[in-house]
Amino acid sequence: KKRYNIALLPGDGIGPEVISVAKNVLQKAGSLEGLEFDFKEMPVGGAALDLVGVPLPEETFTAAKLSDAILLGAIGGYKWDKNEKHLRPEMALFYLRRDLKVFANLRPATVLPQLVDASTLKKEVAEGVDMMIVRELTGGIYFGEPRGITINENGEEVGVSTEIYAAHEIDRIARVAFETARKRRGKLCSVDKANVLDASILWRKRVTALASEYPDVELSHMYVDNAAMQLIRDPKQFDTIVTNNIFGDILSDEASMITGSIGMLPSASLGESGPGLFEPIHGSAPDIAGQDKANPLATILSAAMLLKYGLGEEKAAKRIEDAVVDALNKGFRTGDIYSPGNVCA
Amino acid sequence: KKRYNIALLPGDGIGPEVISVAKNVLQKAGSLEGLEFDFKEMPVGGAALDLVGVPLPEETFTAAKLSDAILLGAIGGYKWDKNEKHLRPEMALFYLRRDLKVFANLRPATVLPQLVDASTLKKEVAEGVDMMIVRELTGGIYFGEPRGITINENGEEVGVSTEIYAAHEIDRIARVAFETARKRRGKLCSVDKANVLDASILWRKRVTALASEYPDVELSHMYVDNAAMQLIRDPKQFDTIVTNNIFGDILSDEASMITGSIGMLPSASLGESGPGLFEPIHGSAPDIAGQDKANPLATILSAAMLLKYGLGEEKAAKRIEDAVVDALNKGFRTGDIYSPGNVCA
Ligand SMILES: CC(C)[C@H](C(=O)O)[C@@H](O)C(=O)O
Ligand SMILES: CC(C)[C@H](C(=O)O)[C@@H](O)C(=O)O
Repeated sequence: KKRYNIALLPGDGIGPEVISVAKNVLQKAGSLEGLEFDFKEMPVGGAALDLVGVPLPEETFTAAKLSDAILLGAIGGYKWDKNEKHLRPEMALFYLRRDLKVFANLRPATVLPQLVDASTLKKEVAEGVDMMIVRELTGGIYFGEPRGITINENGEEVGVSTEIYAAHEIDRIARVAFETARKRRGKLCSVDKANVLDASILWRKRVTALASEYPDVELSHMYVDNAAMQLIRDPKQFDTIVTNNIFGDILSDEASMITGSIGMLPSASLGESGPGLFEPIHGSAPDIAGQDKANPLATILSAAMLLKYGLGEEKAAKRIEDAVVDALNKGFRTGDIYSPGNVCA
Repeated sequence: KKRYNIALLPGDGIGPEVISVAKNVLQKAGSLEGLEFDFKEMPVGGAALDLVGVPLPEETFTAAKLSDAILLGAIGGYKWDKNEKHLRPEMALFYLRRDLKVFANLRPATVLPQLVDASTLKKEVAEGVDMMIVRELTGGIYFGEPRGITINENGEEVGVSTEIYAAHEIDRIARVAFETARKRRGKLCSVDKANVLDASILWRKRVTALASEYPDVELSHMYVDNAAMQLIRDPKQFDTIVTNNIFGDILSDEASMITGSIGMLPSASLGESGPGLFEPIHGSAPDIAGQDKANPLATILSAAMLLKYGLGEEKAAKRIEDAVVDALNKGFRTGDIYSPGNVCA
């Protein structure tokens, strides 16, 4: 039997309840494929702030770092919203991403035929949408220096953030994107703002230069403002998208809403080595926490990504994906994706 | 009779044809309200590059600067896409915005009842959408220093852009936004990424501080990734949005596509003094240029904004707005908004 160490970071709000469901599903899928999991559950985010006063305790980071893969629930809540920046739950996410060096964030946005009505887009526009957004996750304006709030020569406050990418940071995320596109429909759209931003000019140059190594992938470029439009006008045109940290943040959330089922969407954050970080893209939803209303499918599908991308256990991953489709076909729904005629889970 | 000097900058692609229509409409509306216009037509963008080798000739800038208001068509085209940055048509836009100091960009996104079917959003989601996006236009990452592509200590290329806002830049755009909201439905949503960007932390702080001067306006804050989602989930929730240059670029394009009729949407760029710059938000559409297919309504409505915001001629502006509604009610349509049963204009 193969054994894996899985770090479970339930976090805040609905995090604990969706993680506990996904854990059971992992165990079940694993047992059917001869896998065993040792789970280590550790506090993170607001839960960790309440417990020990920091968003990412060292023991949590160490457990995560030493694991084979990490499954995270959700982070944040009203309770800590007034905290100073370094004492905010979200800081745990930054530290985890940065210190685990998981630079490649894969965010699928898929409209399942069973859920096409959940989209606010017209049926003919939404149906068949199936894209993967590859977001750079450890660079750009999220981490660039200088940053901060300073006083200028007029005695006035000035806020600064720096969008910065080195060639190797662009190359490594572009390679992940080309590889991803190659395994999908072979189309890669790189999104930037090269008509304005120098950081984007370098981005476009490096991505373009790599294209010759992937002759089977059709590369195109799109400005981010146009991409925000095209996602609504005709989302089916996209296969794989690659973009920087901040544009990826915005566009992947936009794409997720196009599917109409943000409670369904998983994500994977991967580095060159070391464990990957897997989490639903929805937040902690404090308003419905503890009421057994949360849709666990995003976390369950994150567990599937964990098996596939984190452990290379494609068969066990497939079992989970199939089980999700199966449950939907049987009509089971949580409130967020319920339509008349479904069985309310 | 009142006389006004209007600088017309037709620009590229469909620019000249939509400007010539809007000019006639301006003249007609003006004559009905006792206004006379002296038009001065000047080259800009690609047209200027072809003519004199720079995107914004000094004579063009001077004519614009000395006018009472500027009506611009569209800028750019495949022909100049490979030009070096400083010889790209779009540079004319930056220079105009920067040197005219038009820091406040007003971009309405309205779904007209006659055109609700043009949206890819479901009818019940799209109908009644009526928002105004107030985008900061002369600061932030578009203009911040340092920027460029340099070589780092490893001999590697690094691309840098700087998001930077001084307190007074935030205050003046926030005031425009509060005033705008006050004249509309009294709701202002400030969009930032204050959970990550220091520039956004200052943004939120300043906007919040001003709120007490506008007790009749209800202020809320939203992260940009959430805003990109909410625009699709429930665009009717928005009245007035204020945001920085780059987020405004992305969100206003997203919002325009929600209305389904990007060929319909005008914009106004205003400074503290001096002429305003009025232009359709669509681009130069080189593929349909010269074929009399372009929808002129965005430019006609930009002329209405010119009258209203640029010259304070509300009555003449109203005449144009009414005429547009009238033409739509009679069923006239260009191809981009045509549905069966309409009269093809
Ligand atoms: C919580 C927030 C800091 C985070 C981000 O911006 O990266 C989130 O929006 C995400 O996309 O994972
Ligand atoms: C053409 C481009 C540089 C410009 C911008 O990004 O400001 C355009 O997208 C706009 O929104 O007016």
